[in-house]
Amino acid sequence: MEVKLISYTPNPERVCAIAAALTHSKKKPDEIEKMKDEDLLKILSHVIELGHTSVVEHASFTFAISGVSRALTHQLVRHRIASYSQQSQRYVRFDDISYVVPPSIENNENLRIEYEKFMEKAWNEYKSLLSRGIPEEDARYVLPNAAKTNIIVTMNARSLLHFFELRCCMHAQWEIRELAWRMLREVRKVAPTIFKKAGPPCKTRGECPEKKKDCPWYPK
Amino acid sequence: MEVKLISYTPNPERVCAIAAALTHSKKKPDEIEKMKDEDLLKILSHVIELGHTSVVEHASFTFAISGVSRALTHQLVRHRIASYSQQSQRYVRFDDISYVVPPSIENNENLRIEYEKFMEKAWNEYKSLLSRGIPEEDARYVLPNAAKTNIIVTMNARSLLHFFELRCCMHAQWEIRELAWRMLREVRKVAPTIFKKAGPPCKTRGECPEKKKDCPWYPK
Amino acid sequence: MEVKLISYTPNPERVCAIAAALTHSKKKPDEIEKMKDEDLLKILSHVIELGHTSVVEHASFTFAISGVSRALTHQLVRHRIASYSQQSQRYVRFDDISYVVPPSIENNENLRIEYEKFMEKAWNEYKSLLSRGIPEEDARYVLPNAAKTNIIVTMNARSLLHFFELRCCMHAQWEIRELAWRMLREVRKVAPTIFKKAGPPCKTRGECPEKKKDCPWYPK
Amino acid sequence: MEVKLISYTPNPERVCAIAAALTHSKKKPDEIEKMKDEDLLKILSHVIELGHTSVVEHASFTFAISGVSRALTHQLVRHRIASYSQQSQRYVRFDDISYVVPPSIENNENLRIEYEKFMEKAWNEYKSLLSRGIPEEDARYVLPNAAKTNIIVTMNARSLLHFFELRCCMHAQWEIRELAWRMLREVRKVAPTIFKKAGPPCKTRGECPEKKKDCPWYPK
Repeated sequence: MEVKLISYTPNPERVCAIAAALTHSKKKPDEIEKMKDEDLLKILSHVIELGHTSVVEHASFTFAISGVSRALTHQLVRHRIASYSQQSQRYVRFDDISYVVPPSIENNENLRIEYEKFMEKAWNEYKSLLSRGIPEEDARYVLPNAAKTNIIVTMNARSLLHFFELRCCMHAQWEIRELAWRMLREVRKVAPTIFKKAGPPCKTRGECPEKKKDCPWYPK
Repeated sequence: MEVKLISYTPNPERVCAIAAALTHSKKKPDEIEKMKDEDLLKILSHVIELGHTSVVEHASFTFAISGVSRALTHQLVRHRIASYSQQSQRYVRFDDISYVVPPSIENNENLRIEYEKFMEKAWNEYKSLLSRGIPEEDARYVLPNAAKTNIIVTMNARSLLHFFELRCCMHAQWEIRELAWRMLREVRKVAPTIFKKAGPPCKTRGECPEKKKDCPWYPK
Repeated sequence: MEVKLISYTPNPERVCAIAAALTHSKKKPDEIEKMKDEDLLKILSHVIELGHTSVVEHASFTFAISGVSRALTHQLVRHRIASYSQQSQRYVRFDDISYVVPPSIENNENLRIEYEKFMEKAWNEYKSLLSRGIPEEDARYVLPNAAKTNIIVTMNARSLLHFFELRCCMHAQWEIRELAWRMLREVRKVAPTIFKKAGPPCKTRGECPEKKKDCPWYPK
Repeated sequence: MEVKLISYTPNPERVCAIAAALTHSKKKPDEIEKMKDEDLLKILSHVIELGHTSVVEHASFTFAISGVSRALTHQLVRHRIASYSQQSQRYVRFDDISYVVPPSIENNENLRIEYEKFMEKAWNEYKSLLSRGIPEEDARYVLPNAAKTNIIVTMNARSLLHFFELRCCMHAQWEIRELAWRMLREVRKVAPTIFKKAGPPCKTRGECPEKKKDCPWYPK
């Protein structure tokens, strides 16, 4: 899995802070823009603490994600306040065998070998269908959930906060959880105030909405 | 594939027509509700003809869809102005072999037999992993795009009109196109005015935004 | 203010419960539809308790709201996961003086009389502009925030739960708070399981995200 | 009215073009990022021409808008695929008289003087209520639709294209039309390929969905 933050709103926290300041001020945007970064960030911190996260919608973040499974992307695209551009299995020919191995299989040599053999069979079947004139969009019906794919995702910070709450949680599948934590690490570098308290509710609020007492992260 | 309209806004066109009438009237909702069906439908027709489809958002339609491939649902859930509840491959054990066969393969006996054999291998691998303690959510990495799934979808009429425009088109994949046409047939029965001109642009406006001159439906 | 639930998904809780059951079941929708109401509602209750409210998106509710101020509707339409059809001040002539009086003014006779006199002036100015050929859409620039309007609103249950959390709160303005509580009373009649714990966080979770210790509802 | 583009996705067209290229390519994002601007823009142009505008969602634009009427912002915030932060009339005291004058009134001296007098009365009433202890959120019920407000708006390019289609049209009210054209001018400077054909359907496609034959822009 590769996760790269390829683009984002410049000075994301400043833009959101200007928006926050404007709502409670007589000042025009021009005057607010002249405020010091320090003062603006104080306003932003305060507003986020109160849970008024609508202002952070003004900052967007675009990630290039590659080498993840189609199992993952099927989960990912269920987040609707986001924009996606995904590598198409209808138009792209997946000649090269390329798949994700779950750790539970990776860590057991016998299972891993068996899994690899199966993957070879799957790609052989895919190529066999293609070679006999079946179009890519139909041949792909034999490709497994494990097949690797690339996707570009843009979310605003508010949507990301929600995404991290659900997908950084131990209850999420390991693959999308890894993605979520990697994305969180990236955005924290460029917007530390906004994402200071991002993550699963156990880590941020000491709560477990899933009520999973057997979870290693369950708050004491 | 089974497609059933399991629920929808009662009198969907009446509700939308009341909304349309209200926007241009001095009357209160109570008075508008007393208007004759005939007069309300005239207003609705006129408004839809002008392309002011926001009023049809007040009518929602819920479909139970079963026996479609995960290839299809991955496309379907990209429509973001909609609500989805899908059978989970993380929590449900897919013991029974169950998959979709594309017509291009179905229609060629040799290919079909080969395809069926491969599907058996895939399910055998899935069960083999399960039997050695791999959890469902990981074993499913070997399941193919063809694996059948069930999903419940709710869309409002405006979102459906957009869905039909894209997915009833010959450019859409055959499986989601079949789904779209079946959904359209269902909603036309209960909301004929709203969906009178629903479908691909070639059929409704005599235009082909895809500019696919080799398409059998290309407008002359 | 008049608030009427003019339409909603039939058997709203049953539809949402079917969706909830489907996600964790091998059963096809047809079989799930045959389940007893009692068993389905148990599943729905459980799912809502865990905070998995996506399934309640399948139920939508349409309200006809009249006699509210434009101040209120400007707040209301900020809720984006919803559909609105509002009486237009561009196309409708507001000959009849018609406005909302805030309780703080209503309860002080002197202020109320002064307020009423001002409202007469505003409508006189409006009519004066119209009589000299100014179109409705421009004459309305003199109409006050207090001017009454009618609006039809559709929200799904998940969006409503969020709306009630914010707008049933003492921190919301009195007028939209009254609207929110009225809407909540209506939907509770037809979907008691879904809206059992709806309302401001102080009433439902014993928390105050606003940290307003001087609020009469502040949890002890 | 002041309209300033205060922030946007850096190299907006490049980001969208990378997304477009990724969907139809075997290449990983890293390799696509190395493509020449020229080649990427060709792909973007082609995709936009086909009406596949989902890729331009990856570019967002933030505007600071000041000196517009509350009549305008009530229309503006109806666009739901957008983020708004507006100066609050509940928390901000509007001591200074400040309002928009429609051109139809501006251009007639008698009407303009009458209008100005009325506005003075409105603000006097507002201040009178405040001075007797009425809170801002209630005193504002006397403020007119013409009252000036400030708002920060973020939309992605796809949502903007839709906004320009509706609001650059002669059918839109003059004030929001002016806003739309100003916004369009700003984004064209930084994303000329994306917004090349943005605007009302009469200008871009030679069509008038409103069927307003008496409109000066009606296509011949």
